[in-house]
Amino acid sequence: MQHDCSFLDDLAIEGEVSRGPSDKRTHASDFGTREAQAVEPDAVVFPESTADVSAVLSAANDRGVPVTPYAAGTGLEANATPVHGGISLDMTRMDAVLEVRPADLQIDVEPGVIGEAVNEAVAGNGLFFPPLPSSGSISTIGGMIATDASGQQTVKYGEVADWVLELEVVRADGTVVTVGSKAAKTSSGYNLCELFVGSEGTLGVVTRATLELAGRPEQVKGGRAVFETLADATEAISDVITSGVDVAKLELIDERTARMVNAYADVELPERPMTFLEFHANHGIDEEIAFCRTIVEAHDVAAFEIAGGEKMAELWRAREEIAYASEEFNPDREMEGSGDVTVPIGRYPEMIAAVQSVAEEYDRFIPCFGHAGDGNLHYGVFADPDDPEEVEQARAAHAAIVDRAIELGGTATGEHGIGRGKRKFLEREHGTAGVDAMRAVKETFDPNGILNPGKVLPDPTDQASTSATIGSTTGRTNSK
Amino acid sequence: MQHDCSFLDDLAIEGEVSRGPSDKRTHASDFGTREAQAVEPDAVVFPESTADVSAVLSAANDRGVPVTPYAAGTGLEANATPVHGGISLDMTRMDAVLEVRPADLQIDVEPGVIGEAVNEAVAGNGLFFPPLPSSGSISTIGGMIATDASGQQTVKYGEVADWVLELEVVRADGTVVTVGSKAAKTSSGYNLCELFVGSEGTLGVVTRATLELAGRPEQVKGGRAVFETLADATEAISDVITSGVDVAKLELIDERTARMVNAYADVELPERPMTFLEFHANHGIDEEIAFCRTIVEAHDVAAFEIAGGEKMAELWRAREEIAYASEEFNPDREMEGSGDVTVPIGRYPEMIAAVQSVAEEYDRFIPCFGHAGDGNLHYGVFADPDDPEEVEQARAAHAAIVDRAIELGGTATGEHGIGRGKRKFLEREHGTAGVDAMRAVKETFDPNGILNPGKVLPDPTDQASTSATIGSTTGRTNSK
Repeated sequence: MQHDCSFLDDLAIEGEVSRGPSDKRTHASDFGTREAQAVEPDAVVFPESTADVSAVLSAANDRGVPVTPYAAGTGLEANATPVHGGISLDMTRMDAVLEVRPADLQIDVEPGVIGEAVNEAVAGNGLFFPPLPSSGSISTIGGMIATDASGQQTVKYGEVADWVLELEVVRADGTVVTVGSKAAKTSSGYNLCELFVGSEGTLGVVTRATLELAGRPEQVKGGRAVFETLADATEAISDVITSGVDVAKLELIDERTARMVNAYADVELPERPMTFLEFHANHGIDEEIAFCRTIVEAHDVAAFEIAGGEKMAELWRAREEIAYASEEFNPDREMEGSGDVTVPIGRYPEMIAAVQSVAEEYDRFIPCFGHAGDGNLHYGVFADPDDPEEVEQARAAHAAIVDRAIELGGTATGEHGIGRGKRKFLEREHGTAGVDAMRAVKETFDPNGILNPGKVLPDPTDQASTSATIGSTTGRTNSK
Repeated sequence: MQHDCSFLDDLAIEGEVSRGPSDKRTHASDFGTREAQAVEPDAVVFPESTADVSAVLSAANDRGVPVTPYAAGTGLEANATPVHGGISLDMTRMDAVLEVRPADLQIDVEPGVIGEAVNEAVAGNGLFFPPLPSSGSISTIGGMIATDASGQQTVKYGEVADWVLELEVVRADGTVVTVGSKAAKTSSGYNLCELFVGSEGTLGVVTRATLELAGRPEQVKGGRAVFETLADATEAISDVITSGVDVAKLELIDERTARMVNAYADVELPERPMTFLEFHANHGIDEEIAFCRTIVEAHDVAAFEIAGGEKMAELWRAREEIAYASEEFNPDREMEGSGDVTVPIGRYPEMIAAVQSVAEEYDRFIPCFGHAGDGNLHYGVFADPDDPEEVEQARAAHAAIVDRAIELGGTATGEHGIGRGKRKFLEREHGTAGVDAMRAVKETFDPNGILNPGKVLPDPTDQASTSATIGSTTGRTNSK
């Protein structure tokens, strides 16, 4: 779909308009877009200010030209791919830390700032931004807001939405609006701040954020518990959470993932299911760890090792390698489905068992890991892109896992967002009435449909053209 | 404004339709409605099921008849007063605890259940619902969701919105929609759950809620710190929060409030500014309290007394008496303004000082207390209702305090909601663009304007008729 973007040359903006082949190519896809599904924008705009964003949106809205916000491109559901062409709005030059207010536990940033840069800006004040995802050193705050990201520390500290106080947002017609409040608590009017968080750039474009910060804990320790079986691991996880152990990270990796990491990285993990744990406290950390140990040891545990400092980092290192290990381990196959289903914590053991069954039933290699303490499970389903049957099986397996999560009261996506890849699950999860309500909100905020079209909501007009390439779930899935 | 509600008699509902004078009278006002501003509904409906609510809304929507949800009537901003007449929808018969799932840390309830009843239902599982407001023993979960309530424990555990996972909501046209997820974390579609929370029944009527629960801490201790001056108290509060002390409650009361409580209740509070504190932990509570003490003692503190059990309850008892004490203390005066402004914690000392200045400037008795750890401040401004000049001064003082809070980056209402009383501050806080965005949402969800009309959003058509009775802020305020 090509759009006439010549109007961009007449806009008086500080930022840059590019139509260079290299810029168009790098903005055609993100981490979650397979090569065949990349779509080049007609132009890439690099705004430098809120006024720039406003000018671009206002003009694009008048002309019905799509605008898809882009930043680090680390989204896993093709969230930032300009599938309808038009403008890729690259927010990475709006990357300033505007103000740190340690006495308020707050920081104001532009959306293009990298997550870790926030932590660096406030480290001297003994503060940090708790909900950073694992991609925090490469992904931007704007991207995290777009998907309502979460991460390893969410089990203790909550998600990105919990730490966003106020947003400046440019609406589709270019109007600039401030939503939320710098007060830690407000009941003043509708909670539009939380509505924009997680809306993936389909309701407006965030140009400034006020984030809340936390004090760094005085004591930090962490390590691993290794289990005999996956059932032991998942039941221990569920018990730790319901017992109220104050755990700051609680990650699971299964045997398959351990094997992948060993093959990829210079580590020697026991090839068994295991959990990675971390504890944060001002006082009493050893007692809390001992409390956790008694709960874990009620299950069949082969090792429970917790330490501080260097030793802790050593125990944890393998966890950081997973994202890269899975690609390396499957050189001839592409990831057909990237999962982040999340279920109520009491159903976590059933969910993990269901993934094992699906892997057997569809004869796919499906490694599992994830933020277990939140009931969140990551998995990859791989297939040889040149083998249509294998691709079909992989997609069906992916859909079967999501279906099972929804049956267990869970969600299709805990943190990556719906983007393009998970639109097919939206109605199954929220029902027709739920999707209708979301669509009404979309039409209110984006009547011309210019903001990141083809994302989040299933689009009836483009269903036909995309089902062949993305989102096809034929075969066994449909009969479930 | 009278509405023909005869259609109610033709609806096949399980619940009751009443036009009895006593029912109409009791539904004409809530805690925040002064007698002269009470408005009787044309009918009171007591639904027994979601289907009942759907039938009533659908029929009322077709006829443009207002429907104002009502429950315990404990709102402080006339949130539940049917100011446009029509139907008062009394949700108190939908008060079932539907299911407790301790392994998921979840409970499903109907909206009419009283807050404390949730705690009673899960006490046997060692669980509790952390964000209950101080009115938790008389107010309903539905009411708490309507205003996004918070309370003394919000400083540690967050607000009601943080503990609402999923809602069943009946939309204006009677459509039933489920929003949110039973997963602890979701990024699936728009966050409509948080949009309905705090919308005061103006976007839909909640008929079922899934709430998250927490494990009761193993250790609880609490008590008081008494300060020489109010500045010492507020600076200590700000320091405790920014130092990252893990405090579960951190309340302030000023000297005036202490005096009121002494006069009303059988307690002997020192008549000085003081904070009430409580600590929750599984381990290490004494070390945390010692950490807090070092921070508090950097200020001019006359006493710092923390204990467990009975002694703690004794130290805290006076805090519970405040709501009633203020009415008793001012028998000839009515509360003209009930404040719950909230500011960033670093600005709390300035905010409290500003209230003192306003009290002097307008010659009003303005006692202060509140959830200081959140930057939240409660105050009352009293006036003799038969003395127009005094009433005017009181309203102007109230508005001046809210203005100052907004100037300091804060909000007009931390937890009571906008209701009717605070609509006049909405645009000052959110700007024209902010209010426009809220109005667009209202029109999307309630195109016929039947849901609790005259609340939250300033209504141009009824401004003229109400400014004489509610919301008049003439005089000094307007020139600020």
